[in-house]
Amino acid sequence: MRLTVLAGGIGGARFLRGVRAAYPDATITAVVNTGDDVTLHGLRICPDLDSCMYTLAGVHDHRRGWGRTGETWRIKAELEAYGAEPTWFGLGDLDIATHLVRTRMLDAGYPLSDVTAAICERWQLGVQLLPMSDQRCETHVVVELEGARKAIHFQEWWIKHRASLDPLAFVQVGVDQAVAAPGVLEAIADADVLLVAPSNPVVSIGTILGLADIRAAVVETSAPVVGVSPIVGGAPVRGMADRCLPAIGVEVSAQGVGAHYGARKTGGLLDGWLVASGDTADVPGVEVRAVPLLMTDDEASAAIARAAVELA
Amino acid sequence: MRLTVLAGGIGGARFLRGVRAAYPDATITAVVNTGDDVTLHGLRICPDLDSCMYTLAGVHDHRRGWGRTGETWRIKAELEAYGAEPTWFGLGDLDIATHLVRTRMLDAGYPLSDVTAAICERWQLGVQLLPMSDQRCETHVVVELEGARKAIHFQEWWIKHRASLDPLAFVQVGVDQAVAAPGVLEAIADADVLLVAPSNPVVSIGTILGLADIRAAVVETSAPVVGVSPIVGGAPVRGMADRCLPAIGVEVSAQGVGAHYGARKTGGLLDGWLVASGDTADVPGVEVRAVPLLMTDDEASAAIARAAVELA
Repeated sequence: MRLTVLAGGIGGARFLRGVRAAYPDATITAVVNTGDDVTLHGLRICPDLDSCMYTLAGVHDHRRGWGRTGETWRIKAELEAYGAEPTWFGLGDLDIATHLVRTRMLDAGYPLSDVTAAICERWQLGVQLLPMSDQRCETHVVVELEGARKAIHFQEWWIKHRASLDPLAFVQVGVDQAVAAPGVLEAIADADVLLVAPSNPVVSIGTILGLADIRAAVVETSAPVVGVSPIVGGAPVRGMADRCLPAIGVEVSAQGVGAHYGARKTGGLLDGWLVASGDTADVPGVEVRAVPLLMTDDEASAAIARAAVELA
Repeated sequence: MRLTVLAGGIGGARFLRGVRAAYPDATITAVVNTGDDVTLHGLRICPDLDSCMYTLAGVHDHRRGWGRTGETWRIKAELEAYGAEPTWFGLGDLDIATHLVRTRMLDAGYPLSDVTAAICERWQLGVQLLPMSDQRCETHVVVELEGARKAIHFQEWWIKHRASLDPLAFVQVGVDQAVAAPGVLEAIADADVLLVAPSNPVVSIGTILGLADIRAAVVETSAPVVGVSPIVGGAPVRGMADRCLPAIGVEVSAQGVGAHYGARKTGGLLDGWLVASGDTADVPGVEVRAVPLLMTDDEASAAIARAAVELA
């Protein structure tokens, strides 16, 4: 069975562990958001790819939700002591090794998809991680800052300002030049089931679907498409979807996100929509099912993955 | 008083601490060898500049002789786990922060001299560290390797092969294009005393003097030039001078190095030559004095610095 998953950071990473646990013999491919990627201190950082990689490798910090377990912050403290800006991004020592390897390969001319494959080789994930694109396509957030309307990098909005500034709009810088990375369109076209992870509908899933060729492949694939709601009981399980959805006029609910994604029959994304027990959604043309959606451990995540595939 | 010091790594660094301790009110400038510099994992590494900086800042590992005290090696282990080559260079976590700041500034277009000044700002050394040149001028070592004559980077010879391969020659790659960094020629011309630290005569002092404009400035300065022997009792106190000197036909002794440096009167380097108690040297035109030369602590190093300045 071929399972392809559109995924962002933490929610995507945990869901992928569930898919792998539920279908260990399946060929699992994740198309991962790279809109959050950023270059800091000369290091190319891919937060969502790394969250998926570390989580699938089992070396993630489960409590914190991002980065490596047993992480230390010695270099970050040194950079601050040197007065090197910015100081607001959480660059762990172990994490920096990943960024060094990635940056060096990118500087040598390898595309991000090749670099990602090379880095993942170490971990033997059982899931192929594909960046959505080899081109830079960065999410910027339009905000009011110091009296002016300004577009800042997603990480600056999310980490530096802790999402405290109202997002007026999200902009994908470079989206017109970006195309799907090698393997992405095939993984969508050839899937038996295409799953949409419970990731941020705006800055993870929305960013992936912002690439015209990926959106077209999703619309055209013969595979059923089933999404998992990242909103449980009117709030995101994790992250800042509640800050992002209002900016695009979408209600923070399983109903709101389901309707936003829409039915494939009417030009949207979904054939099936998995919402949390207790939540409801009514999206014309979309089969909705309610199951427990909290990914507290691999077994819970695997149950969600099974429910999604069965709905398909 | 203006004291200018030609310096390499550990020997230079300890001697600089002695000069600073002996003459706290002097304007002290160090012209530091950059022939050992190397780019690894995308990081620009300047071992001698960093040895001087860390040692003067008092954050050096005194026992190991290089790098930071309290250093850890987590990133190095990660890089190895990723299969990132080379694995033989000792890249400490704290040290990497220095390299990241340096590399980022160099990539932004700043010359090494400006970058060095910016990095040293943190430490308030009381000694100005100048790279000998802003241009790359790398020491390569000609060796027999796998049946062929080959020139390898100094670090590869010294660290990877632990100086086990006989050096047939030392080559300064880029020396014809390199010129003294800003401030170097002035520091030599305007010095009251020019000191030659007990650093490797071949790959530290020899490398600095390999730059034609620096050698000319040393020959022409009105300051007396006093050298301190790095050879004590027929062996280097530290490092691999005993492996380097024979390659250029120089005896491993205070006499040998003194004669190699030669008298300024006859086109050489020295007016005075400080050798270790128990050693002797007879270099026509050079005033030789014997004092204890082991830099076991700052007071011992300061006594050597005082003896050198007094000899001048």
